[in-house]
Amino acid sequence: MSGSRLTRRRAITLAGAGVAGVAGVAAGAGALISGSRDPAAASDHPAQAVPFHGEHQAGIVTPAQDRLHFVAFDVITKDRGRLVELLQEWTAAAARMTAGRDAGVLGAVGGMPEAPPDDTGEALGLPPSQLTLTIGFGPTLFRDADGRDRFGIADRRPAALAELPKFPGDALQPQLSGGDLCVQACANDPQVAVHAIRNLARLGMGVVSVRWSQLGFGRTSSTSRDQATARNLFGFKDGTANLKAEETDLLRDQLWVQPGDGPDWMTGGSYLVTRKIRMLVETWDRTSLAEQEEIVGRTKGSGAPLGRTDEFDEPDFAARDADGQPLIAEHAHVTLAHPSRNNGAHLLRRGYNFVDGSDGLGRLDAGLFFIAYQRDPRRQFVPIQTRLARHDVMNEYLRHVSSGLFACPPGVRDGGDHWGRALFG
Amino acid sequence: MSGSRLTRRRAITLAGAGVAGVAGVAAGAGALISGSRDPAAASDHPAQAVPFHGEHQAGIVTPAQDRLHFVAFDVITKDRGRLVELLQEWTAAAARMTAGRDAGVLGAVGGMPEAPPDDTGEALGLPPSQLTLTIGFGPTLFRDADGRDRFGIADRRPAALAELPKFPGDALQPQLSGGDLCVQACANDPQVAVHAIRNLARLGMGVVSVRWSQLGFGRTSSTSRDQATARNLFGFKDGTANLKAEETDLLRDQLWVQPGDGPDWMTGGSYLVTRKIRMLVETWDRTSLAEQEEIVGRTKGSGAPLGRTDEFDEPDFAARDADGQPLIAEHAHVTLAHPSRNNGAHLLRRGYNFVDGSDGLGRLDAGLFFIAYQRDPRRQFVPIQTRLARHDVMNEYLRHVSSGLFACPPGVRDGGDHWGRALFG
Repeated sequence: MSGSRLTRRRAITLAGAGVAGVAGVAAGAGALISGSRDPAAASDHPAQAVPFHGEHQAGIVTPAQDRLHFVAFDVITKDRGRLVELLQEWTAAAARMTAGRDAGVLGAVGGMPEAPPDDTGEALGLPPSQLTLTIGFGPTLFRDADGRDRFGIADRRPAALAELPKFPGDALQPQLSGGDLCVQACANDPQVAVHAIRNLARLGMGVVSVRWSQLGFGRTSSTSRDQATARNLFGFKDGTANLKAEETDLLRDQLWVQPGDGPDWMTGGSYLVTRKIRMLVETWDRTSLAEQEEIVGRTKGSGAPLGRTDEFDEPDFAARDADGQPLIAEHAHVTLAHPSRNNGAHLLRRGYNFVDGSDGLGRLDAGLFFIAYQRDPRRQFVPIQTRLARHDVMNEYLRHVSSGLFACPPGVRDGGDHWGRALFG
Repeated sequence: MSGSRLTRRRAITLAGAGVAGVAGVAAGAGALISGSRDPAAASDHPAQAVPFHGEHQAGIVTPAQDRLHFVAFDVITKDRGRLVELLQEWTAAAARMTAGRDAGVLGAVGGMPEAPPDDTGEALGLPPSQLTLTIGFGPTLFRDADGRDRFGIADRRPAALAELPKFPGDALQPQLSGGDLCVQACANDPQVAVHAIRNLARLGMGVVSVRWSQLGFGRTSSTSRDQATARNLFGFKDGTANLKAEETDLLRDQLWVQPGDGPDWMTGGSYLVTRKIRMLVETWDRTSLAEQEEIVGRTKGSGAPLGRTDEFDEPDFAARDADGQPLIAEHAHVTLAHPSRNNGAHLLRRGYNFVDGSDGLGRLDAGLFFIAYQRDPRRQFVPIQTRLARHDVMNEYLRHVSSGLFACPPGVRDGGDHWGRALFG
């Protein structure tokens, strides 16, 4: 069976055939509980493939998968041609891996018997698991820390890709922040997401180098109305008021870069902000339920705004208790982050919980890997985070340790298109 | 809904009712592909509960779940009574959480409205997911690094709980090694495993402190003949020849501590060795397929021993190729680890893949968190690892960075029994 072609496609068929009575626990528990999932939709099946090609990149409004492997790369070549070539190779590999094709082929590179296998093999036998791969370009790709325009694209840098300001309380670790390129891999099986990032890194040897990487184990946002809202490590439902795939008008206004917004190459793309937010869960766990709910502005059980009964009820910021005090505090997280307090700004969030072992001080190194897509960070993430960083009582329990900003180009069209075409031509 | 009693039991019912057509991808893909799973067996359902009580602890021969959160604690109290009290509290919490009972109750501790919630809440709405919690006692619990018998149990230390020797090539980090206590949480949903460890740590505040903790995302061993063999990050099937739950005679001989083996309190228990093994995947990925297979002694595609055709065929160490060379090298991993070369010694392994971000040198910090249970490490892990550490060509691609050794007592019987009873009386 050396060099066998046991493809992941075969695994899908097997999984599809034998599924009755076996629940999708890790992958599908949230969706099952919501009761609103349409089991007939093939691409809605947690084992299936999500289309790679399209107007926009997959992995943005795609219903948030349950697992994440995110990587930021430094470009270590100075050769523009080699970089573009890698982006082409990556695109082909991404199209294959997201479809579950060829990922299980253990043939040697170029057919040379003494060459390494052309796939690392750990996803052999696993279905596509709704893998999406989403690429982004960081500010340093256009002009590096020394001011150099390594690849002749400084004049193509969008104004919206302006370095984020330092926010009050930031405790960023430079080695965990930034990056010339990023790839977000989301899937319902972490082995599939890890396999994809590892194989992109392998293809990039000598051209790029892994700067930082992050695994996430539980989604904290829904990006579709069909998904139940999941919980973050504070135990609260997170992302109830998130931008959702069904809100087409809001997506146009708040998510996708429109013609005239900046350089043409970004039209149909979106800007990505990542923040690794350490959560001091041990301190949080010593806080009373009443105080936790006051800080968040929502009920812990149902997720309803304080004073309301259903998770999806709109917060009533005017409501008062018997003593005339606001039911939702002015400095509650839900108030500060609400579009009505931020010039109507929304974010499409798709963050993940993480636990990276312990911190050497007897505590878990746990938190939220925050991911938000938007049309222009200068009008969305930056003002919202400025307000939160200044006033949110939750900050007492948070440390922002990593930050990333990336311009994610539009989707790849079938045929000769590739991840670098929009930017590099 | 403040303080609501939306229990995980309700979630199970919902999951059970709405499951048709939604595959258990992350949780069940391996099992689905094997085609041999019995969907009728309730405890075999990846969402269901595994019984907590029994002759042996769950989480040892229990069919390996897909996700791991492992934690080692230092005991920071000097008060034996408080430690025993915590072990009692932990036992009650473990029984509840593994059954999916009460974990979703957000009532305040002791019913005091200003007290913190008595559960952290992030597993609200999630089913039990086959959660198992397995406790172990480290050598330092009996006598600490300064030689102190803090809890009056030095004379109860089993001879088999002898500190492991330093093996050639070991690169152990003391802060990631050892521990007075450990808890292994395995589940098909990582949020459930993380929730369990976090809540045990929360209950232990002031009595224990997290020393180190490790997440694992993909099982690398099967502990039941019904499970398909999963792959490690070298892309090879791992654990093909593992001890399995069905091999009752071998389990008695190799896994469970028998009467007369040592102190009575360990009868029915087992010894646990953990090793965090960094895998230099980038170097491995540059190695040819032929060389990888020679190092392992198995075919990468099917997992069959070299020269054989089926994964479960016995390796034929006498087989020669046309040139008279052994088909399976004398220093292949499969040869060195084989019971026939180790006085018949077997291990029950249930390790997990990990990726802990990157190493700051452009590489993924990835590998295997090795877990092995056995009747006596002095006759099993130690001689096997000594042989591997000396001769295994695979060592070129491995670094052992953490090591743990724990005595896992027998199972908890229903009623007044608890995790500390066997040892502390």
